Amino acid sequence: MSTDTMPSAEIVFDTLFAYQRSAALNSAIDLELFTAIDEGAQTSAAIAKRCGASERGTRILCDYLTTLGLLNKSGGIYQLSAESAAFLSKRSPAYLGTTARFLLRPELKQNFDDLTETVRLGTLSPKNHNSVSPDNPIWVEFARAMMPMMVPAAHGIADLLAVSSAGAMKVLDIAAGHGVFGITIAQRNPRAEIVAVDWKPVLAVAEENARAAQVQDRYRTLPGDAFNVDFGTGSDVALVTNFLHHFDQPTCTNLLTKVHAALKPGGRVAVLEFVSNPDRVSPPIPARFSLTMLAGTPSGDAYTFAELHAQLERAGFSNISAHALPTPETILLAHK
Amino acid sequence: MSTDTMPSAEIVFDTLFAYQRSAALNSAIDLELFTAIDEGAQTSAAIAKRCGASERGTRILCDYLTTLGLLNKSGGIYQLSAESAAFLSKRSPAYLGTTARFLLRPELKQNFDDLTETVRLGTLSPKNHNSVSPDNPIWVEFARAMMPMMVPAAHGIADLLAVSSAGAMKVLDIAAGHGVFGITIAQRNPRAEIVAVDWKPVLAVAEENARAAQVQDRYRTLPGDAFNVDFGTGSDVALVTNFLHHFDQPTCTNLLTKVHAALKPGGRVAVLEFVSNPDRVSPPIPARFSLTMLAGTPSGDAYTFAELHAQLERAGFSNISAHALPTPETILLAHK
Repeated sequence: MSTDTMPSAEIVFDTLFAYQRSAALNSAIDLELFTAIDEGAQTSAAIAKRCGASERGTRILCDYLTTLGLLNKSGGIYQLSAESAAFLSKRSPAYLGTTARFLLRPELKQNFDDLTETVRLGTLSPKNHNSVSPDNPIWVEFARAMMPMMVPAAHGIADLLAVSSAGAMKVLDIAAGHGVFGITIAQRNPRAEIVAVDWKPVLAVAEENARAAQVQDRYRTLPGDAFNVDFGTGSDVALVTNFLHHFDQPTCTNLLTKVHAALKPGGRVAVLEFVSNPDRVSPPIPARFSLTMLAGTPSGDAYTFAELHAQLERAGFSNISAHALPTPETILLAHK
Repeated sequence: MSTDTMPSAEIVFDTLFAYQRSAALNSAIDLELFTAIDEGAQTSAAIAKRCGASERGTRILCDYLTTLGLLNKSGGIYQLSAESAAFLSKRSPAYLGTTARFLLRPELKQNFDDLTETVRLGTLSPKNHNSVSPDNPIWVEFARAMMPMMVPAAHGIADLLAVSSAGAMKVLDIAAGHGVFGITIAQRNPRAEIVAVDWKPVLAVAEENARAAQVQDRYRTLPGDAFNVDFGTGSDVALVTNFLHHFDQPTCTNLLTKVHAALKPGGRVAVLEFVSNPDRVSPPIPARFSLTMLAGTPSGDAYTFAELHAQLERAGFSNISAHALPTPETILLAHK
């Protein structure tokens, strides 16, 4: 074997050891390391003291996080990167630590321990945790954990629907979760009325958030399975956010057909999704998200715009458009 | 929260989900996916058939590997990257799949499940697997797994020591493992005699490799703990490869002092290590390797050149130099 003509094996080892990145970030969040630095601790000794940790462990963890770009280091002084200041310090209003802890829950990570079997089967192996099983208690914690991340998309949807100037409107929020999509519309339009659909224990989280946002008088809940519960009729807007990727295409079309029936003529649906390009390998986040759906659902996927367009069209929608967000997701709007 | 002034959270999520990269590569190696493509399977259907896997799972896994740069995709056709062709296809003489499987063994990965406690304690938590416990059976598999990776460094050491023109020489190979460092010298110098030190079950692997390389007549073993076994005297060269990083600095100095005593006057020691720059955050691979030592040893580290220099100097060595390799490790040479 000639070493001169060989490429570097760095990408192979970087990928093999990538699990250590997740573990390092998880530990740093556990120890409130980013918050400690944001509060002024700068050396490994000072950070260790604030975090109740050893100096050796803190130094090695901080150095590792620096190699990932989550900290900066100069002359033994650690500082937050723009991203860790914004998302990983508890002092930031955009703190994502709770989300992060949820996403690294053992039952979500464990689905990847058996990935080989899942790839063989083409659907999640019997050992895996099925995210879309009925009344899966994970969605209650999910609702609490994911809300901060969804604020930008919620405002994006409210902007695109021009809700502030829409006057009285009835909004059907399907798989509402934390409720932030409907609640944001209710906050920005005092005549908007929201009907939130989700499992009953999840709706308790949405109701809590609706009260906190002082829109509870215009917030109604409809507990149950989105495929079976009666959506009623006459809604102006339906929100289908982060939902379609859990299901196969015929199931998505069925759900959208049911949504179509619930809307007034001229009503609109807003779909929030990870949308892959036709090549399915770009942009990276939606493309990679397919693997999460492979590992955690029987037949979910990150669909392309053409696929989502076809689902909406088959369900009866027209005038279908896609709108980029500052986050990795895309909003699709369609009209009845 | 304004979304306009916020940085992207991409690095945060990329880090959180990094564990999926390890899992995807592990599954692809399990399924011989890279070998399948190297053999001519190009579409997800053809790859799936060759791998005995579902087309859906194979397509999603191949797309994910493409986002990592381990495959290329164009018009539904997958091709190996230069790196995956060199290191991940069984058809390549530099195949690293066995190494990869070893590095992703549950007991090595599990040390990172408890990283928070390790950082608190500053040493591996009682739940962790201590790599340096006596006669740890992991080293037998390690010896088999790591050999292919070490071939370039073994030739690098043989080159630096100019062994081919050195005439009769006695080489002490400490913590020999697979034995490739000593065996390479024996292959390149027919008058070199090797004495390999390691745990007895590990030396069985080295002896097997020595026989395969047809140098067994000049290959002797010295089973036991490198800190206690008698190295004898009069060696021309001592090899201390991938060993010092498991221990704290005083322990390294003690070992090197013992090595010094085993050498002839003018004898040389070759140390192979992950060497961090003084900032300890570059280059990334040695810097990150510290975390592996934090998680898996009581007090190991990836040392800087200054630290290794000090260890060697305290042990009595002089004329200490560092030599880059095409791999992420560095060779240090020093003279008695």
